Amino acid sequence: MHDSKSAYSQIMRVKHFDIEAERMICIMNRVDAIELGLFPLDRAELKVIGGNKRVVTVVDVTQTMVKPNELGVFKDVKEELALKGKSRVRVTPVPQLDSLRYIKKKLDGQELTGSEIRQIVEDIGKNGLSEIEASAFVSGVYIHGYTLNETVAMAKALAENGKMLRITKRPVVDKHCVGGTNGRTTMIIVPIVAAAGCFIPKTSSRSITSAAGTADAMEVLANVSLPMDKIKRITERVGGVIVWGGALDLAPVDDQIIRIEHPFSLDPPGQVIASVMAKKASVGSKYVVIDLPVGPDVKIHTREKAEDMARKFIEVGKRLGMKVEVVLTDGTQPYGQAFGPLLEAKHVLQILEGEFFDQLAQKSCELAGSLLELSRKVKSGKGYAAAKEILQSGKALKKMKEIIKAQGGKCFSSSDLHELKLCANILSKESGRVDKINVRSCSTIARIAGAPGDKKAGLYLFVSEGDIIKQKQPLFRIFSENRRKLKLAVEYAKKARVVETERSVLERIP
Amino acid sequence: MHDSKSAYSQIMRVKHFDIEAERMICIMNRVDAIELGLFPLDRAELKVIGGNKRVVTVVDVTQTMVKPNELGVFKDVKEELALKGKSRVRVTPVPQLDSLRYIKKKLDGQELTGSEIRQIVEDIGKNGLSEIEASAFVSGVYIHGYTLNETVAMAKALAENGKMLRITKRPVVDKHCVGGTNGRTTMIIVPIVAAAGCFIPKTSSRSITSAAGTADAMEVLANVSLPMDKIKRITERVGGVIVWGGALDLAPVDDQIIRIEHPFSLDPPGQVIASVMAKKASVGSKYVVIDLPVGPDVKIHTREKAEDMARKFIEVGKRLGMKVEVVLTDGTQPYGQAFGPLLEAKHVLQILEGEFFDQLAQKSCELAGSLLELSRKVKSGKGYAAAKEILQSGKALKKMKEIIKAQGGKCFSSSDLHELKLCANILSKESGRVDKINVRSCSTIARIAGAPGDKKAGLYLFVSEGDIIKQKQPLFRIFSENRRKLKLAVEYAKKARVVETERSVLERIP
Repeated sequence: MHDSKSAYSQIMRVKHFDIEAERMICIMNRVDAIELGLFPLDRAELKVIGGNKRVVTVVDVTQTMVKPNELGVFKDVKEELALKGKSRVRVTPVPQLDSLRYIKKKLDGQELTGSEIRQIVEDIGKNGLSEIEASAFVSGVYIHGYTLNETVAMAKALAENGKMLRITKRPVVDKHCVGGTNGRTTMIIVPIVAAAGCFIPKTSSRSITSAAGTADAMEVLANVSLPMDKIKRITERVGGVIVWGGALDLAPVDDQIIRIEHPFSLDPPGQVIASVMAKKASVGSKYVVIDLPVGPDVKIHTREKAEDMARKFIEVGKRLGMKVEVVLTDGTQPYGQAFGPLLEAKHVLQILEGEFFDQLAQKSCELAGSLLELSRKVKSGKGYAAAKEILQSGKALKKMKEIIKAQGGKCFSSSDLHELKLCANILSKESGRVDKINVRSCSTIARIAGAPGDKKAGLYLFVSEGDIIKQKQPLFRIFSENRRKLKLAVEYAKKARVVETERSVLERIP
Repeated sequence: MHDSKSAYSQIMRVKHFDIEAERMICIMNRVDAIELGLFPLDRAELKVIGGNKRVVTVVDVTQTMVKPNELGVFKDVKEELALKGKSRVRVTPVPQLDSLRYIKKKLDGQELTGSEIRQIVEDIGKNGLSEIEASAFVSGVYIHGYTLNETVAMAKALAENGKMLRITKRPVVDKHCVGGTNGRTTMIIVPIVAAAGCFIPKTSSRSITSAAGTADAMEVLANVSLPMDKIKRITERVGGVIVWGGALDLAPVDDQIIRIEHPFSLDPPGQVIASVMAKKASVGSKYVVIDLPVGPDVKIHTREKAEDMARKFIEVGKRLGMKVEVVLTDGTQPYGQAFGPLLEAKHVLQILEGEFFDQLAQKSCELAGSLLELSRKVKSGKGYAAAKEILQSGKALKKMKEIIKAQGGKCFSSSDLHELKLCANILSKESGRVDKINVRSCSTIARIAGAPGDKKAGLYLFVSEGDIIKQKQPLFRIFSENRRKLKLAVEYAKKARVVETERSVLERIP
């Protein structure tokens, strides 16, 4: 872009700012920027005088914060270059990154090659792209979409850019739920398929907008922050783990892209598929079941979109050497009655202990059955029955206890989990038949009550869809560690239409 | 998006960071963010406890920089809220900005209404949009373009968001060059049309990528940073000014959008038109001439694109109550021999003094003539001759001296401007006919030599296209204030093909 860049460099005094920018940035005076032919958001390489360390930084230009011939740097750069108090650095303008040309290409509606996508992922990973640049990329992907080739390339690039789990003794099976609701199917599926002899090193997320993520619920029972080598060892010995993926550096650029998508909830389907399949590839999965809930309040709203996405998941999986089955599920209803880490963990243990067999248990057996069939542990058509047998025979509970123990847990029984004493019941204002339970409102109430930060906070439903209820009958109970939060949650609950009843009289015409 | 936001707020201790972020940002611990239902890039209102001041900030989330219950703020927020050392603030999540919905709408390819565009401009102006959000908007505009309605609405919104110059005694005339080359036509046109009785309060920019902007060159002669009331007074008394627009707060959001476009040089034509017309509207222009240079090295590459853009300029002008004429000019050659603030200012004064009448003088008279015809100062077809007469009679020089004096300048004659003694000639390597002079290389060399920061640094051409030259004949001279910069500029000049000659022998086949 600016031909003068290669011709010129400058030695500058470092001025330190004691703050983490979480990106490699330098700040220079406008005078120096003009001399070096640099503009805000251009890049410059800094090399320590009297040393070998160098780093590429994004340039910010100021008229006030630093003087001419001074270069402002944040902690990140200081650490990277091991700078002392009075260091000097040589500042050299860097020609435009190739990634920027590729992003422009995407904005212009052209297909990117695998190596172009790899370069973009690499540069995002190094924090080499500014937020403006990364956002332009995500916007281009949102508007123009991905071809199948691009989706596969993105999944590969995301996986290969991070660490990989390598388990070779047996093929790895995995499941994933896209934009789900409540109910911890994972904590039921993992012990079932591990008990059947599969390897399932399951990485899960913490809650983003719901009352609990699988990692939050599992953390009630055991340690979920395990290093890679331990995950490998436990999986090979016990058959499965349930851990938090966030600390593992698996496809880390995926998280950066999701952060950029957040303000507009952009979520282009191709990027969602690449993101999920990258996580699966990074743990070495061979057989994968994808759970796609469909409904107005979850990520995928229509059956058609879900079916289209399912076909793409299967095709991308094939190209990545995985056998994928997609299960469309009902995203309009809650799975299980619990919202919040402790309540959901307790609910799962009760199912494993055989206390009841509800919709959550049923859905879990369906998904576990698919995995058993996919990985040829049982014959086609026999998966569900096999999974249910493993659950009801107590083998799944035994396996879950092994997993909890291997992950350093001490809580093995639902009776070890004590609900909070501080709670409030919400009563029905009317009588009628329960027509709809608003899952999102349940999550919100649980969050206001303190979940998932307060592990024991949450909401427990007493009614299900189709139930006939009376006026003043308790609909659900809110648990909280703190009176103020409980009060706010109750206030919100009284206003929200959490449980909708069907009225026999629709309207009275005077 | 997140229903819980309205339900909850929290009082936090302020932790100060002694740095200007140039945006309203607060940093909170992940624990607090979860409690408040906030995600990075969401917004929160801060209200001082024991005071009335409040401000909306973008939220950043950390696990290390601040502790739970602490809120990190930068200088900007500190000043806005007049915070003391140990202040506490109430933090309340803010529902999603309407602008984000409108940006999503643009990403989805739908036309925005005037009020939606106004809201986006307003939010960018308040630094209410993050870079991710603003970049998504610019990307959407780049991919989907603007309709004529949107262009008009954007121009209006940009102008109305800033200050406006209000001159009522006579209609204001104006000129603008889109993505130009060298040559300060403005400094010749302004005195010509002012001498003819027009009001022309011309705001100009400093150099971005060239060796000098009009403001840089005019600054050699006079003060270019004038307040609005003084610009109005001088225009009404003398007829014109030539000032730097950057300090005036005219359509300031335009600069913010240009900054976002920079990494990809996005420049969607609709945004360029809106940007130019906003600046024209903000000084109250009624008659406007737009100079559109066309050529491979300038912003507009083809005649077709230029013609399409010209039609849109005229139509948008009409909708904004302006009479616009667009002049397509040759963007492949230099206008005048000078590159650099002092050299270009001196060249302009020499033309006004009647020392020569070159291509720069001719182009300036053409554009000035268009303005005289547009504003009905002279009859159609007589503009060029009238402008040339004003120039050659010395009336333009007299007017320029009045303008320089009014702007507090002390330099009225080309003989007052002394070239630097430190210089170097670059000689031709071959003989032949000059086929092409590479304007961009000339600018780059002048910049490496120190322009526009060093006012006297620059490059002066000795040859023009079509000249027959001999080997070792001087092609141009480089001026610099500093031996090191001169050396670098000479090195670059020797490698670059600044002056291309046509060879009579194209190839020798053995």
